[in-house]
Order: sequence, then C-alpha cells, then structure tokens
Amino acid sequence: MNVNGKHYRSIWLHPTNQGIVQIIDQRKLPYEFVVEDLKTVGDVYTAIKDMHVRGAGLIGATAAYGMYLAALAIPGTGDTIQYFISQSDKLKSARPTAVNLNFAVDRQLELVLQNKTSDNLIRLLRDSALEIADSDAKACQDIGQHGLSLIQELSHHKPGETINILTHCNAGWLAFVDYGSATAPIYAAHAAGLDIHVWVDETRPLNQGARLTAWELEQEGVPHTLITDNAGGHLMQHGMVDLVLVGSDRTTYTGDVANKIGTYLKALAAKDNNIPFYVALPSSSFDWTISDGLQRIPIEERDSNEVRYIQGLHNNTIDRVLITTPTTAASNFAFDVTPSRLVTGLITERGICNASENSIQLLFPEKRSYRG
Amino acid sequence: MNVNGKHYRSIWLHPTNQGIVQIIDQRKLPYEFVVEDLKTVGDVYTAIKDMHVRGAGLIGATAAYGMYLAALAIPGTGDTIQYFISQSDKLKSARPTAVNLNFAVDRQLELVLQNKTSDNLIRLLRDSALEIADSDAKACQDIGQHGLSLIQELSHHKPGETINILTHCNAGWLAFVDYGSATAPIYAAHAAGLDIHVWVDETRPLNQGARLTAWELEQEGVPHTLITDNAGGHLMQHGMVDLVLVGSDRTTYTGDVANKIGTYLKALAAKDNNIPFYVALPSSSFDWTISDGLQRIPIEERDSNEVRYIQGLHNNTIDRVLITTPTTAASNFAFDVTPSRLVTGLITERGICNASENSIQLLFPEKRSYRG
Repeated sequence: MNVNGKHYRSIWLHPTNQGIVQIIDQRKLPYEFVVEDLKTVGDVYTAIKDMHVRGAGLIGATAAYGMYLAALAIPGTGDTIQYFISQSDKLKSARPTAVNLNFAVDRQLELVLQNKTSDNLIRLLRDSALEIADSDAKACQDIGQHGLSLIQELSHHKPGETINILTHCNAGWLAFVDYGSATAPIYAAHAAGLDIHVWVDETRPLNQGARLTAWELEQEGVPHTLITDNAGGHLMQHGMVDLVLVGSDRTTYTGDVANKIGTYLKALAAKDNNIPFYVALPSSSFDWTISDGLQRIPIEERDSNEVRYIQGLHNNTIDRVLITTPTTAASNFAFDVTPSRLVTGLITERGICNASENSIQLLFPEKRSYRG
Repeated sequence: MNVNGKHYRSIWLHPTNQGIVQIIDQRKLPYEFVVEDLKTVGDVYTAIKDMHVRGAGLIGATAAYGMYLAALAIPGTGDTIQYFISQSDKLKSARPTAVNLNFAVDRQLELVLQNKTSDNLIRLLRDSALEIADSDAKACQDIGQHGLSLIQELSHHKPGETINILTHCNAGWLAFVDYGSATAPIYAAHAAGLDIHVWVDETRPLNQGARLTAWELEQEGVPHTLITDNAGGHLMQHGMVDLVLVGSDRTTYTGDVANKIGTYLKALAAKDNNIPFYVALPSSSFDWTISDGLQRIPIEERDSNEVRYIQGLHNNTIDRVLITTPTTAASNFAFDVTPSRLVTGLITERGICNASENSIQLLFPEKRSYRG
C-alpha cells in the first residue's frame, strides 16, 4: 500500500543485502516512519514480542523470515536439526495467540526436516519465507474482492448514501504483508468508487486503531473518523453503522474468533442491532485443531504498564503519560474470543462462509484431516 | 469521603466567606488536589461545562449553589424574575444529558417565584442549595445500604471467595456530594468487612475511571484493578465478574438508563453471561417525563480533541499526548442509553426495583402525575 504515495509492503528483504530483513517499526507510527533491520533470530523474536511488528499475517511472515535468518547462522558444531527446533521454539514463544506464528514457523521447520542434507537450505528457507509473504498478500487481495461484493450489496440497499463500516484494532496492511484482512474490502470498495466511511475504534491499550488504521486510511484517502472503544454501541443503536468488519488472530474450525480485546463487545452490539458482523481472515489464521475457542485459545496477558500509560506525540516527540494513580495496578488481557453465534460470516481468500464447521469445511475441504 | 485521611465532600460553602462556593477541580485528579473557588454564575457555568465538576448529583448540587450565587448578584435595575430565569437558562445549558441539572435549577427557580418579594431570598436559596446537597449525600448513603444487601447476598453464594464488581466511569463520591451512587454499596461492603474487588474501566475519553474511581478506591483502601474499556467482556466470559454496578445521568420512568458512553456494551456483555447488571441512582436522576430513552434523552457531543488527545502525568506535570495522526478527525458522544431490558435492577434511596415503569412507580408513587 502507499506511504506518502510510495508503495510499501510491511516486510521485505533488504534490496542489496540478503542477510537483512526490513520492517517498519510500528511502535513509532503514525509519528515517525522508521525502517528497522532484522539480522538475527533474536532481532526477530524481539520485534514480534515487543510489537515492532504485530498482526496475525505479519507475525507469521516475520517469523518465516526469522527461520531464514536462523539458516544464515547455523553453528559450526552440534545437531543442526536440534538447532532449528530450538530457534523455532523461541520464535513461537514470542506471542501466544496469533496462530499464523505457529503456522509459518512449522512450515519452515518442515522444510528443514525434508531438506536437512541439502546444500540449498538457506535458499529454500528464503524462498519459502518470500512465498509465505506473497501468499499472505495474495490472500488479503482476494479477501478484498470477496468483501467488495458484500459492500456493493449493502450499497444497493442504500442508493446514494454512505456505507459506514466500523472496525476494531488494525487488521490493515500493517497487520499483514499487504492490503490487510478487514481493510482489504475497504480499500477495494474505495478503489471501486463506492461511497464509504470508516469508524475507527482507537483500540486501547496500544491504540492500533488510532495510530495505525487511521494512518493507513489517511494514506489511502479513505474517509474515516476516530472513536473511543466505548462509542460503537451508541453508533449502532442510532443507525450510524452498516457493517462491522474486523480481523482475527486465530479462528477455530468451528468459527469462534479470537481478536483484539473488545471485539466481543462490538459483536454483541452488532447482534443487538441487527448489523452484519464479518470477520476477514486468510486461511492461515484458522486453527484446525481447536473446536472451543473460549476455552482453548490461549489469551496473552501483557505488561500492565501498557494500560497504566498511554503513548502519543508530545512536543513533536513520542512520549507517554500516566493515566491513573502511581500505585493503581492494571490488568492487560490482549485478546478476547467472539463466539461463532455472534459472527455473521467469515471473509476468506476462497470466499465468504458462515462461522460454522460445515460452512468452513465446504471452503477448505482439504483441512478435514487436521481436526483434533 | 476521605482524602489522605481527611473527610471531604465534593462541594461546600467556604467556611468563613459565604460568597464563595468551593469545589475540587476534578480535571487535575489524581495528580493534584486543587480546591477551586466559585464566586459567580459564570464560574459555576464554566465549572460544569468544562468539567471541573461532573457526575449527575454533583452537577445538580453545583447548579443549585449557582442559583444562590445569582441571588448574591441581583442587578440594581431590571426585572428580578427575568434575571433569575436567564441565569437558570444559562446554568441548564451547561450540559444537556444529566437531568439532575434541570431538577436542581428548577427547584431553586420555583423558590424564587414563590418568594419573589421576600427579603430573605438569598438565605432561602443558600439553605435550599445546602439542602439539595445534603439530600444528595443522604440518598447516596441509603443507596449504599440497599446495595450492600445485594452484595451480601452474592457473597452468600460464594462463601470465602472474593466478590468481583465491575464499574464504568466514576459514579463515586466525586460524582455526587458524598458516597457516590455505584460506589456507595462498594464502600458499604468494604466497611462491613466483605471481601470485594473492583474492576475499574478506564472510561475513555476522559478516563474518569482511571483517574477518579481508582483514586477514590485507593483513598478508601478498596482493592481494585484498572482495565481498558475493551476488557470487561472477556472478564465476564471467564467468570471474573460477579456484579456490574454503574451510575446514571438520566433514567426514564420506564427504566432506560443514560450513562457514560460504553455502559451499553457492558450491559450487553453482562446479559450474555448471566451476570447481574445494576444501576445505582438517587431519584433526582429519574426523568419522569420521558418514556423512550433511546429516542428522547439528549446525548451530548463534546470536543473531538478529548478523543484525539489523552491527558495524564508527564514528568510530574499534567500534560497531554496526541494519539492519532495530526489530521484525523474524531467523534465524541459522551453518553449512551442502555435499554431497560438489559438492566437487572435499579438501586435507589428507597430500595431496589426492576427497571420497569410499574416497579419504579411502586417505589415512587408520588411521581405518577409528572409523566408526559
């Protein structure tokens, strides 16, 4: 997508030095656009854990590149397979909820196991990382086209009127390799000339909506308005939302959706006001082994200071303010699970389906064997 | 209640100068405890409009004192009644949603009309303001006792376990004259030695939960944890909330509840998880003229910069940070309406009732004639 009119992806190989993976340090957006070099598995681990990169697809792609960087640093002694297993364990431990991380690392590890004697392991892992990134972008592009039909249909019911879409967190191109999941239909609709407007939930504690989604939409010229996480229910009660569109960090094969904390509240409000609630996700975000999302998806708890402090721009520098008493403790669950009964549909790269085992299986019949 | 061990109310007459009303400037809490002098109707109008004071009961009491200050400054010429009407119109225009403002100003204005020839008008308005403040404190104290029974009952079902109460915004003593509405049962339960813990919603945009409720609870020694507004649904899904307890800025005689934006989302989550959702309010917060809260309660829209910036402590001074791009627009509805069907019960100074016209009428039979 565009940054000041120039095309970017959210991750790429350094153009002249193949030992360096480059990312945008998202902690500094929208105030500073800083490209960061990742050179080691340790760099990748830190970038994921401390959220220089975040979002289901991008975490997966970054970890895939991490396995490539691991191949560049195979120690001279010791068991190479054990080395790769320990590197993959390290990467997978960086964050617990997004299943794309496991998906990408396991895919790279499988490649290692299949080609352990190959002289081309480095090239194979590099190409595979590139391929994982490309597939992610392609899946998001396809999600955009399927979601576009949905928005077109909504606009037929409101000729001449703006379609208002509410989104939570950032399931934008910054959360994937390109296009985004929830934003892909928005960008496709905007490109198709549809009259749309996006309500952007600020998404406390880390404000990915206020910082990242608002910035992305601004760069692409999509009309949008920032709201507090508290506001969506009121807007829905008063006919100001036509569609809720969010991403997912992990969705069970039965259609339960883990996404940024607060998503569940928006799903409840959408249900209460008969507003369609769609989740956009590439199939890499499905967990084919878990049936009960509420009980079985691990929910990350992060540092309570992310709640106690808020970061923003202060005198042209990025700084933070304390928002409570110096001694008040805080709790910081990063995700919640929206039960499938509240989800109108899932927008995947293969089309739109209901949030149910049968409907998901019809789109992804080859995944049947995975189920635990 | 207590501030560093010393008893305070949220508003009082200056002890030696009866021409001055004193308040705590709540914009500066919890970082600075600043007492502000109000000397004119203009001071009172600004204090309410710019939220030096806020909260249903305290807005009412402050406006009542405002009418007393108006009496201290009756102009030498012109129609006195017209003067009081224009002063009351000004005060009522400061904020639209909390009905206590109209209630208190109209009561003072009625006193003026009944005593227009009295030499004691100033004293009458002063005593009436004191009486409105005292009634508010007394009503909250009684709400505390009724709510205490409710918490005691919950604790009987969980012997030896902590009762977890979630609250939104600040319906604390800072929002009333003393005790608070939603907090009164909490303080009563804590004083009675019950094992309670409070989840404090930060309550964006102005963070009354993070700033005021957390501070109040800390001063009174009540165990509490700050959470983002997004977190409550997840906590409820996982059995970590036993009771949701909030205040109200205006409740219709049918039981629809206007309260801080985001309250409706918590009510939906409570319903979805079979958790009791109670609203604590003195009868001065009922609107006896409105039946349909969703359509008829005016919802204040405030400055969008309250959303775009967040205030907090930075290098030991109160400052703010920009949380989005410099050009992103924001919307700032201050309240939402929770339909009566989502409310388990109302805790009033006369006892607990259902959120229904019949049940409310049984507690307040004398209000029947008001209904429009």
